[in-house]
Formats: sequence, structure tokens, C-alpha cells
Amino acid sequence: MDVQEPKSFVIGLDLGGTNSVFGIVDQRGQVLSTTSIKTQSYKTVEDFVDAGIEVLKPIITKVGGISQIQAMGIGAPNGNFYRGTIEHAANLVWGHEGVVPLADMFSERLGIPVGLTNDANAAAIGEMQYGVARGMKNFIMITLGTGVGSGIVVNGQMVYGSDGFAGELGHTTMVRDDSARLCGCGRKGCLEAYCSATGVARTARELLQKSNEPSLLREIDHKEITSLDVSIAAGKGDKMALDIFAFTGDMLGAACADFAAFTSPEAFVFFGGLTKAGDLLMNPIKEAYQKYVLPIYKDNVKFLVSSLDDAAAAVLGASAIGWEM
Amino acid sequence: MDVQEPKSFVIGLDLGGTNSVFGIVDQRGQVLSTTSIKTQSYKTVEDFVDAGIEVLKPIITKVGGISQIQAMGIGAPNGNFYRGTIEHAANLVWGHEGVVPLADMFSERLGIPVGLTNDANAAAIGEMQYGVARGMKNFIMITLGTGVGSGIVVNGQMVYGSDGFAGELGHTTMVRDDSARLCGCGRKGCLEAYCSATGVARTARELLQKSNEPSLLREIDHKEITSLDVSIAAGKGDKMALDIFAFTGDMLGAACADFAAFTSPEAFVFFGGLTKAGDLLMNPIKEAYQKYVLPIYKDNVKFLVSSLDDAAAAVLGASAIGWEM
Repeated sequence: MDVQEPKSFVIGLDLGGTNSVFGIVDQRGQVLSTTSIKTQSYKTVEDFVDAGIEVLKPIITKVGGISQIQAMGIGAPNGNFYRGTIEHAANLVWGHEGVVPLADMFSERLGIPVGLTNDANAAAIGEMQYGVARGMKNFIMITLGTGVGSGIVVNGQMVYGSDGFAGELGHTTMVRDDSARLCGCGRKGCLEAYCSATGVARTARELLQKSNEPSLLREIDHKEITSLDVSIAAGKGDKMALDIFAFTGDMLGAACADFAAFTSPEAFVFFGGLTKAGDLLMNPIKEAYQKYVLPIYKDNVKFLVSSLDDAAAAVLGASAIGWEM
Repeated sequence: MDVQEPKSFVIGLDLGGTNSVFGIVDQRGQVLSTTSIKTQSYKTVEDFVDAGIEVLKPIITKVGGISQIQAMGIGAPNGNFYRGTIEHAANLVWGHEGVVPLADMFSERLGIPVGLTNDANAAAIGEMQYGVARGMKNFIMITLGTGVGSGIVVNGQMVYGSDGFAGELGHTTMVRDDSARLCGCGRKGCLEAYCSATGVARTARELLQKSNEPSLLREIDHKEITSLDVSIAAGKGDKMALDIFAFTGDMLGAACADFAAFTSPEAFVFFGGLTKAGDLLMNPIKEAYQKYVLPIYKDNVKFLVSSLDDAAAAVLGASAIGWEM
């Protein structure tokens, strides 16, 4: 080991609806080893933590034991940073009923500080620590996955708000008229209902039903269409697919224009499956932003796509919380 | 003088389009004396500063000389905190053409640190230092005057953003369809176009034209109607005037619901002429917020009206910047 190499590591846990991936990460953002368990195979959170500790043991030993580990960071749905809890997470069998003090539970078992926040905040911290937002003090992370998440950084600090639940920009209202789509949150017209992966698929289905315009998307069963199908068709120059990205990008750009009036960020950083569409999505976002934004925010704002490797990004982001403990 | 009395003071300057009011303020938020000059009576900023220094001299002497003054704070339109400048202020004869380094100019003349920010940020700092937001670390100030301004506090710090221009929530978009009102900023559908004093007057004119409903407001020349007229009529139980406040409050509540998804504040603090309407405005705001907001932000959010005395509030807010230098 080179003398320049950092001496300590952090553990990252990306707790997803299907898999819970643990990783050991060094200060340079190298994921040294990972291991995982099935999130939903445990009836109680105690069993989940037991299983986690069990698979962690060998990878902790590999880096020299727990004395080499500074802290652990967890990115989890409905994660509350202030309390280190997962609160009313509808999609977790052992977490949907109340408040799970997961950070404390791991901290007691491992004897190290453990921090926990939601997935999008973890992504923002990861981006600030290891990614394209290094050195930035004011930026907004927008994650385009099954939902639309966000992590807001102001004055170099994560914005958790008064209660730990700040930064749900996917649930700002973009459509207020009768046509507004119902969102998974039970409200209407949310950004997420249009610009998440599922929102894009919904836009595709709506357009296919509304017109007879020929499209590669017609070769797919309407009900089965995904945002990836739209992405592939757009890559082949399919007009309808391009229109879908134009519509999605226009709304994201309009949303960013409003977000700029909030924190005047240096950059918007996009992450998640939809960003695979590259310029097909990013160009409409930038154009719409320029069109809708207040003139004082026009210049100097960057629109970036996360530079972190997809497979490692979630674990990296979670681990980055560890460095902040 | 009691031994408990603070030994030092700050100067506040509320730089408005008509008057520039200077005040000496102690640590308890008492405005000990004020003096003012006409903002627009000077051709150059140098002449303006000269005149300001001239009227300041006697009130500085009164508190024991400049050695008793810790700093000066300025609240000004288009104020930039990072640079201490007024930038492209369209309504100032000596400020509309470029970037005026007003903080440095006063600092050089007085030999004390001088901070400068925009009016709404100054109001937020004043509220945090002396008003209803004392002790709060996360709140959003919304000023309802000729325009709609805002000051955002996160983790106990003002949010200035990457460039000093953060917090223009009056220019978030509330109406995106063809009916959207043109805003003074040149864009369409801004909160300010509906919920400022001028926006309320406009709503009144629109309603009067649209219907034949009887209203006390019909006794006033349409073109001359102000938000104060609406407020007085509503106070007398006039249905149309009450409808106007219901409409305005509904939009403000919907806007706050989106703002909550940003910073999850402990409170929204309202300031400015429109708040004189009291519950006529505040009740519709609270009802709309509960109706539109994401469930996690429903509880524990306070809707407050500034407790600072109107005449002194602007100077107080500006002076509070001085304590932050």
C-alpha cells in the first residue's frame, strides 16, 4: 500500500426495495469490495440488521478490521438524517409501519458512527464528495428514476430542513389545471408524475393513444412500454420518441427555472436511468431553462450528468455520508 | 445607562425607491434615532453617499461617535450580498446602468464594515434577529408589497446562492396556461403577478369586469383600485372582496406547499401591506396549504405575520445585517 493511500475507510449501504448493497469505500471514492442481502427477505428489522452484520464481517476483515473504518453511511427510502431513522417506508416489509432507528441499530452493533439519509440526498453528497459537484457549494441534484428525487446543497451543506425531510422537488406542482396527472403521492400535477421513468412511459402511452402517427413504439404492447424503449426509439430518430423527450425536457427545464429562483445554484446535476438518453434529454432541458428562467439566473448555470459509475454510485453516495459524520 | 445595556450599535439603511432611511439600532432592536434623504435627488452615487454621510454625522455623535458603531447594514433593491453591490436597479436614477459598489463606498467613508443585501433578505434577517423568527434555523420570509419578495433561511443562514441572487420566490411560476398574467419581469404566470398588492388590485379589476355582482368596489374608479380598497371592503364583509382574498390566499398557500418541498421550513413569515388584511388573507393561505401540500409537510408548519413595527421594520432588517458582519 502506497504511503499516500488513506488509512481509513467508510462503509456505505444502499438500501433499495430489492437489494441492500454494502460496500467498503476509501477516501478517493474507490469501492474496494461489496456484498449484499435481499432487503425484503426478513420479517423484522432486527433480522435484517443481523444478516447485514453477518455479510459485512468478512469484507471489514479484508481491510484490516473495524478499527480501520471511520463511519457508516446509509441511503434509504424515507430516510431521516436528523433522527437516523426510516419513517413509514411503504415499500419495506419491516419498515412500513412506523419509525425504524436503523442508524442507531447498526451503530450499536459496529461501534462506529452511522449516518442515514434518503437516496437522493445520498446521491448529492456522493456527487459533492467524489463526482461532478466536487468543490461546489450550491447545487441541486435531481434523480430521474422510478420517481423524481432531489438533494439540495446550499453553502456547502445538505438542506435537511426543520424536520429532516427537505428536498422533495419531485413533488412540486407543474400542472394545476384539470388535465393534471395523479401522482403516486396522492396529489395532482407533480413533476414526478411526468418526468420520472414511469412518467415518461405514461407520456408515451398517452401520445400513442392520442394519434395515429407511425412510431417504432407501436411495435411494443402499450402496457409494457418503458422509458428505456422510448430512449432506444429516440436514439433511432423516431419522431414520437423524440417528442416525448422534448416534452419531458421542457418540463424539467421549466422546473429548474423555478428552482433557480430558490437557491440560485451553480449547477443542476442529473442522475438515474433517464440520463442515459444523453443530449436527447439534456438539450431540451437546457433550452427550456433558457426560455423560462428569470434573466438574472440565465448565465453561468451548468447542467451536468452525474459522472459516477451507475453500479457503484448509490453505495458511494451512501458511504459519503460516513465522511460527514 | 443600565449596565445591562449593550455598548455598541449598528447603522441600518433602508434604501427605497423614494426615501433612504438611516437608523441607529441597539442589540435589542431598539431604533434609537433615524434620519433620511430622498433617494432620487442625486445624479450620482457619490453625491448620494455624500448626502448620507452628512445626515448620519449628528445621529452617530448622539450615541457616542463612530467608535460605538459595530457595522452598517443596507437593504436595497437588487442588492448583492457577496459583492456589496446594487446591480442594474431599474428604479434608481444613479443605479440603473450598472454595478454600484455601495457597501464599499460607505465602508471607506465610515471606517466600519458594511453589508448589503436585498430588501426581502434584510427583512428575513431582521425577523430572525428581532422578530417572530428568533431562534428559528429554517424559515421562509415572504414580503407582500408592490412586488412579492422572499428571504430563505436554512441551517440558520441566509440563502444567497452561488451568485448572491437566490430567493426570488415571487418569480416562481404559478400559472402555465394561456391565461397566465404577464409579470413585471417580462415572464408569465409569476406568483408576483397575482399576489403582490398590484396583483390583488388586478384581480379586483378582472372580477369587476367579468361579472355584474354588486360590490362596494364598484364605487371606486376601476383604474384607481388598490389592495387597500379591497382590504377595507373585505373588512366590511363585501363578498367580492372576500373572494379576492380567498383567491390570493389560495395561490399563496399553493405556492407555500411547493416551497415546503424545497426546505421544509419551520415557518412561513409574511410581511408587508397585504398582511394588514389579517385572517382574511392568512386563513385562506393556511387552508390552501393543508389542501395542496405533501402529507409529510402538513404538521408543525407555522404561518406567521411579522411582529416588527412597520415603520421601523425595514431599517431594523437592514441594521441586522450589521450584526452578521
